[in-house]
Amino acid sequence: MENSIPYKIYLEESEMPKAWYNVRSDMKIKPAPLINPGTLQPMTAEELAGVFCDELIAQELDDTTQYIPIPEEILGFYKMYRPSPLVRAYCLEEKLKTPAKIYYKFEGNNTSGSHKLNSAIAQAYYAKKQGLKGVTTETGAGQWGTALSMACAYLGLDCRVYMVKVSYEQKPFRREVMRTYGATVTPSPSETTEIGRKILAEHPGTTGSLGCAISEAVEAEMKLDGYKYVLGSVLNQVLLHQTVIGLETKAALDKYNIKPDMIIGCAGGGSNLGGLVSPFIGEMLRGENNYQIIAVEPASCPSFTRGKFAYDFCDTGKVCPLAKMYTLGSNFIPSANHAGGLRYHGMSPILSQLYHDGYMEARSVEQTAVFEAATQFARVEGILPAPESSHAIRVAIDEAIKCRETGEEKTIVFGLTGTGYFDMVAYEKFNNGEMSDYIPTDEELQKSFDTLPKVDL
Amino acid sequence: MENSIPYKIYLEESEMPKAWYNVRSDMKIKPAPLINPGTLQPMTAEELAGVFCDELIAQELDDTTQYIPIPEEILGFYKMYRPSPLVRAYCLEEKLKTPAKIYYKFEGNNTSGSHKLNSAIAQAYYAKKQGLKGVTTETGAGQWGTALSMACAYLGLDCRVYMVKVSYEQKPFRREVMRTYGATVTPSPSETTEIGRKILAEHPGTTGSLGCAISEAVEAEMKLDGYKYVLGSVLNQVLLHQTVIGLETKAALDKYNIKPDMIIGCAGGGSNLGGLVSPFIGEMLRGENNYQIIAVEPASCPSFTRGKFAYDFCDTGKVCPLAKMYTLGSNFIPSANHAGGLRYHGMSPILSQLYHDGYMEARSVEQTAVFEAATQFARVEGILPAPESSHAIRVAIDEAIKCRETGEEKTIVFGLTGTGYFDMVAYEKFNNGEMSDYIPTDEELQKSFDTLPKVDL
Repeated sequence: MENSIPYKIYLEESEMPKAWYNVRSDMKIKPAPLINPGTLQPMTAEELAGVFCDELIAQELDDTTQYIPIPEEILGFYKMYRPSPLVRAYCLEEKLKTPAKIYYKFEGNNTSGSHKLNSAIAQAYYAKKQGLKGVTTETGAGQWGTALSMACAYLGLDCRVYMVKVSYEQKPFRREVMRTYGATVTPSPSETTEIGRKILAEHPGTTGSLGCAISEAVEAEMKLDGYKYVLGSVLNQVLLHQTVIGLETKAALDKYNIKPDMIIGCAGGGSNLGGLVSPFIGEMLRGENNYQIIAVEPASCPSFTRGKFAYDFCDTGKVCPLAKMYTLGSNFIPSANHAGGLRYHGMSPILSQLYHDGYMEARSVEQTAVFEAATQFARVEGILPAPESSHAIRVAIDEAIKCRETGEEKTIVFGLTGTGYFDMVAYEKFNNGEMSDYIPTDEELQKSFDTLPKVDL
Repeated sequence: MENSIPYKIYLEESEMPKAWYNVRSDMKIKPAPLINPGTLQPMTAEELAGVFCDELIAQELDDTTQYIPIPEEILGFYKMYRPSPLVRAYCLEEKLKTPAKIYYKFEGNNTSGSHKLNSAIAQAYYAKKQGLKGVTTETGAGQWGTALSMACAYLGLDCRVYMVKVSYEQKPFRREVMRTYGATVTPSPSETTEIGRKILAEHPGTTGSLGCAISEAVEAEMKLDGYKYVLGSVLNQVLLHQTVIGLETKAALDKYNIKPDMIIGCAGGGSNLGGLVSPFIGEMLRGENNYQIIAVEPASCPSFTRGKFAYDFCDTGKVCPLAKMYTLGSNFIPSANHAGGLRYHGMSPILSQLYHDGYMEARSVEQTAVFEAATQFARVEGILPAPESSHAIRVAIDEAIKCRETGEEKTIVFGLTGTGYFDMVAYEKFNNGEMSDYIPTDEELQKSFDTLPKVDL
């Protein structure tokens, strides 16, 4: 073990980022704007105001300001659980007998158990500042709902969560954490919204999807006085807030003069990946530096590696604007045996543009290989990783093994987005040898692509 | 907020303790020795060698060495998750409008979710060093079993856990975490041991108890070649390892010239409380300083506040030595509605002696009040506490409220031993208003006292 670099690099409070980094400011080709599906024109701030808070809309639309100051109140909240540690995976390196140097930025050391809290507190703060009573949202596996419940409890805002029904039933503990933080949790689709009733009528017995829960949360917000809708991923504003991850990572690396060769993150809607890699891609965009950036996604939900770069609906009910992104089609649902999270059909427009322009590559991995990596990691590094995060672990291990074979001493950084405490049903399946893989066929994907909006943009 | 004291005080690696503190060395009246129930003589190292590892026996019996160096390998493992933060509860103080200054030492930031890992790695290390193949143990709520599984996975030791049946069934996720770390988990009582079969024959349908699981784990160890038994609380060796908590706490307080008035910890078998308070009580024993030390226990399992200070069996099967401790009798089982952990019938002999000699006080609290404190704490401090830890939170809040009334600016330190991710069944009960309290009657306790061994020591 090198004595100069500690196991965990913690920044001092004074070294923590005071502003979020807006990667769009450095992009020559900006991400395409959200489109109003009715007018086929870019969504205006006025149109978005029906759904989002004013300051968040400003952030959503701002593609020129390079740094956006983090309000004092949010900095104060960040201090409760940030800085998160950048950990040198000495034990994993030793186990793999690799000359590679592996670091991971661990975002799971807060009760919500993931990085989602970074944006939850920001969105709740702006809602509070606008004098709102509460917010509505959706949650799939529950990480985002938990984070938002925590943030709302802290600020005294009401929080209404539409939770994908299959998770609501299979993850009662996640639900109870949200209730402990005072949130109202409704299984989706529900009888409480028009779109919910419509979906239930068309698909009786459906266990729901994220796209459907989004539609319900947006409808609920529009009918409630003093409420706005908030979203945990995909949006530009979310990636902006999550850059606190990448900025801390960069500050910690710089503190010890470490230059990473490779940065790896899992990608569902892109919130963690975007937050982690933005400051590094910023250097690439400005021509200051070069890194290998790798997005990792499930083979069963391969938006980057097999999706189309096109305008698509963000939700099943088609109440949201169109976004240009890598997408599998808004009615795509991963196969029933998929347990590893990252199941959204689309991808952040920012990351989609960067990927399209060659600033990052993408890999898809199968879930049994992901849980193998998760278990190996847990046993040597002592952290039980979320299935989502374990996609990044898988590729980090693969790359470290390549280094063993070539003898290269590459420096690998990956994002460990959260913990797997509420994913033990999936771990149990894996422990019992009952987990299987599924890769959608080209025909299945084509069927889903056929539902892309037929608009000429 | 005072800018001089950060939210979280982290020690540098160089400031971390390099030796455990043995409080017995400073005790004028030493804790009474373990007694062989057959000979009624103090257990010798030779007799203990049938059950425990050699170096752990030496630590168990050593009441004179003041500091015992922590082996390099254990220091290396500690660096994976230590130092744990000493957190200033600024948000809780503000919420309570108290002039008190509240700090908590948070031991939940590791996958096992509690302080138990501090002793688990030490015990696993000495087992490995002795060339053993594996260890056996019992676990109740599962914190200790999880911690030991992690430690054994790290060192490549086999780990066999007897888990109290009611927890095995009600906490399948805890069980799966242990299995993910490679442990074998057996519900207790089981058909795999003589004592298990005997208990099952006498009490068909029993859901088990910690005392019974201890008996099974000890029997299993004695029949397996190359295995020893390890225990997560009560023993002197365990308190010794856990002093890393108190030593770090003291170093962090000293770093900022903070002198606590009051130190509060929850007490089941005493591992966390003993570890947290030992260095402070050491100063009291040496006449250097004075503190108010408060042990908090459930009203439904009140060993300190209503138990007898007497020799008793440590386990139901009566295969273990007798220990002199505050006890409710070895067949005491908390009422079925008890959800808050800390359900062992006895108490660490070291803490029992210190309590008997007036170095600490004890309070008992009811579980609905405990969960109220837990929820209040979670909402403002952002950590979802384990029910066990929440006993200490309850009294810390009570004391802070007293300060609000008297205007005293007391400095309160409490131990936050772990997180409640696997206790959501209890939280759900509380959220639904279905939790109730129970205080055993004097008659019930008397019945249980009647089973104390009739020995004259």
